[in-house]
Amino acid sequence: MPPESPPEPTDPDDRSDRGLLEPARAGTEAEATTSDRAWLRALLDAEAGLTRAQARLGLVPPEAADAVSGLARSAEIDPGELAVRARAAGNPVVPLVAELRSRAVPELSRHFHQGATSQDIMDTGAMLVAARTREVILAGLGRVVNALAELAARHRETPMAGRTLGQQAVPTTFGLRAAGWLVGCVHARDRLAGLRLPVQLGGAAGTMAAFGERAVELLPVYAEELGLAEPVLPWHTLRFPVAELGSALAIVTGALGKIATDVVVLAQTEVGEVAEPPGPGRGGSSAMPHKRNPALATMVRATALQVPAYAQILMTAQPAALERPAGEWHAEWQPLRECLRLTGGAAETMAELLEGIEIFPERMRTNLDLLLGVLAEHGEQTGPGSASALVDRALDHVREVSS
Amino acid sequence: MPPESPPEPTDPDDRSDRGLLEPARAGTEAEATTSDRAWLRALLDAEAGLTRAQARLGLVPPEAADAVSGLARSAEIDPGELAVRARAAGNPVVPLVAELRSRAVPELSRHFHQGATSQDIMDTGAMLVAARTREVILAGLGRVVNALAELAARHRETPMAGRTLGQQAVPTTFGLRAAGWLVGCVHARDRLAGLRLPVQLGGAAGTMAAFGERAVELLPVYAEELGLAEPVLPWHTLRFPVAELGSALAIVTGALGKIATDVVVLAQTEVGEVAEPPGPGRGGSSAMPHKRNPALATMVRATALQVPAYAQILMTAQPAALERPAGEWHAEWQPLRECLRLTGGAAETMAELLEGIEIFPERMRTNLDLLLGVLAEHGEQTGPGSASALVDRALDHVREVSS
Amino acid sequence: MPPESPPEPTDPDDRSDRGLLEPARAGTEAEATTSDRAWLRALLDAEAGLTRAQARLGLVPPEAADAVSGLARSAEIDPGELAVRARAAGNPVVPLVAELRSRAVPELSRHFHQGATSQDIMDTGAMLVAARTREVILAGLGRVVNALAELAARHRETPMAGRTLGQQAVPTTFGLRAAGWLVGCVHARDRLAGLRLPVQLGGAAGTMAAFGERAVELLPVYAEELGLAEPVLPWHTLRFPVAELGSALAIVTGALGKIATDVVVLAQTEVGEVAEPPGPGRGGSSAMPHKRNPALATMVRATALQVPAYAQILMTAQPAALERPAGEWHAEWQPLRECLRLTGGAAETMAELLEGIEIFPERMRTNLDLLLGVLAEHGEQTGPGSASALVDRALDHVREVSS
Amino acid sequence: MPPESPPEPTDPDDRSDRGLLEPARAGTEAEATTSDRAWLRALLDAEAGLTRAQARLGLVPPEAADAVSGLARSAEIDPGELAVRARAAGNPVVPLVAELRSRAVPELSRHFHQGATSQDIMDTGAMLVAARTREVILAGLGRVVNALAELAARHRETPMAGRTLGQQAVPTTFGLRAAGWLVGCVHARDRLAGLRLPVQLGGAAGTMAAFGERAVELLPVYAEELGLAEPVLPWHTLRFPVAELGSALAIVTGALGKIATDVVVLAQTEVGEVAEPPGPGRGGSSAMPHKRNPALATMVRATALQVPAYAQILMTAQPAALERPAGEWHAEWQPLRECLRLTGGAAETMAELLEGIEIFPERMRTNLDLLLGVLAEHGEQTGPGSASALVDRALDHVREVSS
Repeated sequence: MPPESPPEPTDPDDRSDRGLLEPARAGTEAEATTSDRAWLRALLDAEAGLTRAQARLGLVPPEAADAVSGLARSAEIDPGELAVRARAAGNPVVPLVAELRSRAVPELSRHFHQGATSQDIMDTGAMLVAARTREVILAGLGRVVNALAELAARHRETPMAGRTLGQQAVPTTFGLRAAGWLVGCVHARDRLAGLRLPVQLGGAAGTMAAFGERAVELLPVYAEELGLAEPVLPWHTLRFPVAELGSALAIVTGALGKIATDVVVLAQTEVGEVAEPPGPGRGGSSAMPHKRNPALATMVRATALQVPAYAQILMTAQPAALERPAGEWHAEWQPLRECLRLTGGAAETMAELLEGIEIFPERMRTNLDLLLGVLAEHGEQTGPGSASALVDRALDHVREVSS
Repeated sequence: MPPESPPEPTDPDDRSDRGLLEPARAGTEAEATTSDRAWLRALLDAEAGLTRAQARLGLVPPEAADAVSGLARSAEIDPGELAVRARAAGNPVVPLVAELRSRAVPELSRHFHQGATSQDIMDTGAMLVAARTREVILAGLGRVVNALAELAARHRETPMAGRTLGQQAVPTTFGLRAAGWLVGCVHARDRLAGLRLPVQLGGAAGTMAAFGERAVELLPVYAEELGLAEPVLPWHTLRFPVAELGSALAIVTGALGKIATDVVVLAQTEVGEVAEPPGPGRGGSSAMPHKRNPALATMVRATALQVPAYAQILMTAQPAALERPAGEWHAEWQPLRECLRLTGGAAETMAELLEGIEIFPERMRTNLDLLLGVLAEHGEQTGPGSASALVDRALDHVREVSS
Repeated sequence: MPPESPPEPTDPDDRSDRGLLEPARAGTEAEATTSDRAWLRALLDAEAGLTRAQARLGLVPPEAADAVSGLARSAEIDPGELAVRARAAGNPVVPLVAELRSRAVPELSRHFHQGATSQDIMDTGAMLVAARTREVILAGLGRVVNALAELAARHRETPMAGRTLGQQAVPTTFGLRAAGWLVGCVHARDRLAGLRLPVQLGGAAGTMAAFGERAVELLPVYAEELGLAEPVLPWHTLRFPVAELGSALAIVTGALGKIATDVVVLAQTEVGEVAEPPGPGRGGSSAMPHKRNPALATMVRATALQVPAYAQILMTAQPAALERPAGEWHAEWQPLRECLRLTGGAAETMAELLEGIEIFPERMRTNLDLLLGVLAEHGEQTGPGSASALVDRALDHVREVSS
Repeated sequence: MPPESPPEPTDPDDRSDRGLLEPARAGTEAEATTSDRAWLRALLDAEAGLTRAQARLGLVPPEAADAVSGLARSAEIDPGELAVRARAAGNPVVPLVAELRSRAVPELSRHFHQGATSQDIMDTGAMLVAARTREVILAGLGRVVNALAELAARHRETPMAGRTLGQQAVPTTFGLRAAGWLVGCVHARDRLAGLRLPVQLGGAAGTMAAFGERAVELLPVYAEELGLAEPVLPWHTLRFPVAELGSALAIVTGALGKIATDVVVLAQTEVGEVAEPPGPGRGGSSAMPHKRNPALATMVRATALQVPAYAQILMTAQPAALERPAGEWHAEWQPLRECLRLTGGAAETMAELLEGIEIFPERMRTNLDLLLGVLAEHGEQTGPGSASALVDRALDHVREVSS
């Protein structure tokens, strides 16, 4: 019998994604800031901001800026329909501009998108989405960092077995483990926060020719208008802003994924030293009611296994030919979204995990006693060494870089 | 001024994707077969098929099979809501089963999902989506192969310059180029068509314990019920079916991306030997009305730059611990969808390109004359060699493997 | 104080790699079949085989074939020196041909490399290396498969806890686990063994123009001469043979990496159900004499984390422009070597592991009792279900596909 | 006939790599700083530096520091042999320490490696190799930046056609193109130069337990001794130093690969606006004497297609379990080497290219005239806009950040 053929799609919902395959971001704030509609809103903001910047320099009438700003706020545009129309030119800005222009009188609408090329708007829009999602990610990381600082301090002296290659090695403390997680997350946070996210503005071939004599003056004004950074040059084919963003996000999911990996191992039945926060349905299994799965850590780990591959697409797209490549740029869009979205989901999910994580010092003690017995047999005697001093050092460092 | 903060999302649309960042698949058939709703439908089909298979073996009452099959056809379940509920257990099957059970009387509903684990349904659902999308991809590839066979035959003797490392090298024919494209696509088609897409059925830990004594008999019946292949063993953590699928799809986009790359180069202003099919708005630029961009080839190239990275996630997820890993499996879902969807979009887009491609033999001749002049200067004389014989050889091969 | 500057290199050894950073392949057979010297030998064999094939068709004097075959056997050529000379043309075949020609009289040497292009020799050489290394890999996999079949049969009834997401789930058997490993390795073995590894022969632009009228007849003769497959067309820019090879090797390391991952978890101090074979220094730590690290599994896992990324480079290189790309082809060489070499190392290392693995059924029993207690508390009673029947099914399957 | 079986390897050379498959780095300085011997030297320096640091704090006798420093300078240790011995423990430090200890009297040798774990030495050694190779890369980038600044200034007003998606678009200048290349390389240079490369020192489980009470004081002294940075904590499983290094190197090859890609397109026969520096054998083909291939750009592009994939392995290895993972760490070593080595090769190769690149303003003019004709037909009139102002802006920026 052949596979049951799917019925014909009858409504737009039949073609949309809502996170079914990515629970790590389902319902999170980063999902909302990276959806098609959020991206569309950013494209509209980019168009409106450009015309406003031009109006500030007297290059277009203020009425044009008002008109496009009003449309940007209120226009009902369906992202799915726009996506299909995007196929003609290969990007959604061409039909979007046509749409905007169709909704205003010609004497105003001819100033919309004036002097710009599609990539100016796509890239600026992407940076707006990135800036907005970065706020969400940093908020999640803030919660993570706070929870970790508290864990490190509270468990500064909680002894447990250190483990290398799966084998019990020598004693350590849970505080030092938490301090390590903390230092990784603080590094990742600061790396992401420090990135410059620039507007894009170059016109057809990056010479700003169609912006007139005061073209270069537009750069800081446009950047100010949108709250983004000012680039040195149009960066149509200088892709380091995107490549750096991808790599910073992969550093974030790496730091979070490290925590998640440790939680999975420490929550193993036979280890049992930590557990995820309890909750209705949390960690449930469709087949085994007795189980309590590390579902949050699992979702975070899944992002850490994906984001580096998405970031790599951005890295590999850097050698983009001449003034615009045929494919490398277009290959960036979806992976960049996934990097942003999954990182935001991972940060929020990890915050939820750490704010309710259960730590079992007695079980740590029991497991450690096993190790101490073995060490004694080998005539080795060892304690947690400088673990507490290292915890203090980490907490001092975090205070210093965070102030 | 800070980035304009996005308004609060007010409706589910604000959280969905409709292809805005992936024009290569926007509006294509593969988009419909891989959407959240299509995936949900496949999960429902997997549940229904399982209960039907169990009913055929007398393991559950036929009424239970009827009930779940009816629900699978008609139940209104919102994928976005299910996605959010999936966070508790880390996968959407747990809330889906709860939902189904809530909609039937207990004496029937207790037989839904009987003996199964979430992964049985997720994996079987994924294979159903894959099987349905494979049909779509193969249809697209069929159009591509037909168009290429015709191009190869028609231009068997059309001379042009061969080019290596961007430099004119020695003469070749457009027919041989098209024949090469053809052989690549036929290989990719047959590789994809030959893959076995198995049902998944193992229960909690892959022992089929909760299916009773006739458990193993269920495997062929379940496979038959869904039109999928029968596995040797439950493959919860034997991921070659997924890894092979990803790699085969990357081979397809590689073959299509090769054509797209050549089209971009041959369509360059200074080369001008081919052009994409003309059409309203096709290849338009928001800044340059005189241009005719290779928009279709660009979209296909963008898929070929992404799919290998997605496939690699599947490859890297193979070392999945014990009976179910904490993350590796979950990391597969979205990349597998992207592999399927972008490949389907690429095949459909390339068919559209090739069915209308414009070939300019005079321009090929002009460019070739330049080369022949240079070769003559160097005392080299060369024709297209065995190009025509190789075209015939390729066409014979294709006929042979396609029959 | 600045980093101590390294002394000037004084001899070639200062520039060579010997596996220091890849213990997984150090000293293995695959290391020898993929070294620079092995690759050079394959390039020489490719040149000699071509001239012999041409001599068989009467296209060159037999003396030329004898001369180049003799040189291929005996010529002392330093790979490092050749590598430096390769920078002028971007590949090592250009200086290699110059070297060979300089060592014979002109009336013979002018027939060396006759009609060929560098890529014909590089690609054919790569396929020779691949064919030779495949033998080594298959030998390693043969040992792995034998060891696994024995483990599966011997432990057909050895009960243990099944574990999902790190949590004890329901009972299974060690036999079923081993049977799963076995099915994965047999699939991987057969996939690799089934690949066609073709000679490359096309001349400057793939038209075989410089081979004369009987050019196409050369293909089967050349293939026969080297024991490789005959291609449909020259595949200078139809890269599926290389992409398929990479993906098949990633499937192999995935299957082996799965075993290694399970071994690491099962060998954890707190689980303790298996151990790697003991041996002098085996699993030793520089700091902890009491430890016994799963060093073999660790090395295999390291390959499974690398090879998919290398294979992906091959996948992404498929869209290669026109008759020879400027970079995509050149980017294949080293990743292909790493795929072959690490896979060979992984197979040999895993064979060593499995042939001496220690299984501790008592410890499995103890851990399982813990689970059975929990299940009883929840009123769940479950045994290993169809585990034994599935083991038999797997063993039957393996016998069938292996005969 | 089967593939000719390779003869038995008879000497160590038969197992070594010398760059045959990576001409981009063959004979370059980065090859020497990243070879097995260079890595071994760095491991020895790491051991010696540690003992010297301990001696400075009075933790070991100064004679032990002298002894190990002397051995580090003079010991003849074969990397290939060490690699094979590394298989027992899974890393080369275990046999290296054994080797060192065997060469000194026990009262001294027992202080070698005192308190350290293998990973302390492997990671510190890797950072030493990275620091040394970074110097080489920065030197190459310095030459690249100088050449680009000169090109940008000299061609500030040289008009040419801008090209997007392969199509002539609007006019630009070669100066602006060079200025873009420059800004990309300066960003990449500063990103790499700004990285902190820390020593590793934690002992068995990162608690520094075996270093005694003054353990934490060792960190700055060890760092000073080797000219590396001081870490906040031992970073055995906080891998951001390695992940950041990989991503920075991928940013460098991306910036260089962008230039290479443009050179390949601009050097195409039909475009002909630039050519690589002429030289004996440079750009030669084994089949076509008339050709002048962009061999240098091709080699650089090949690195830009590989390095992101290697960097991604480092990114994906971040979630490293507990105090030492079983595989993730081991998977880093070779990809990190390739990142360093290929980036160094790419920088040196690109410097060679840019210092001799030939620019053909007349051909640019001819091609541009074609475009201007088309634009005039469409009633579009456009010049290079703000290209010169942007060049000045870029040069100012570079002066500012470089001072």
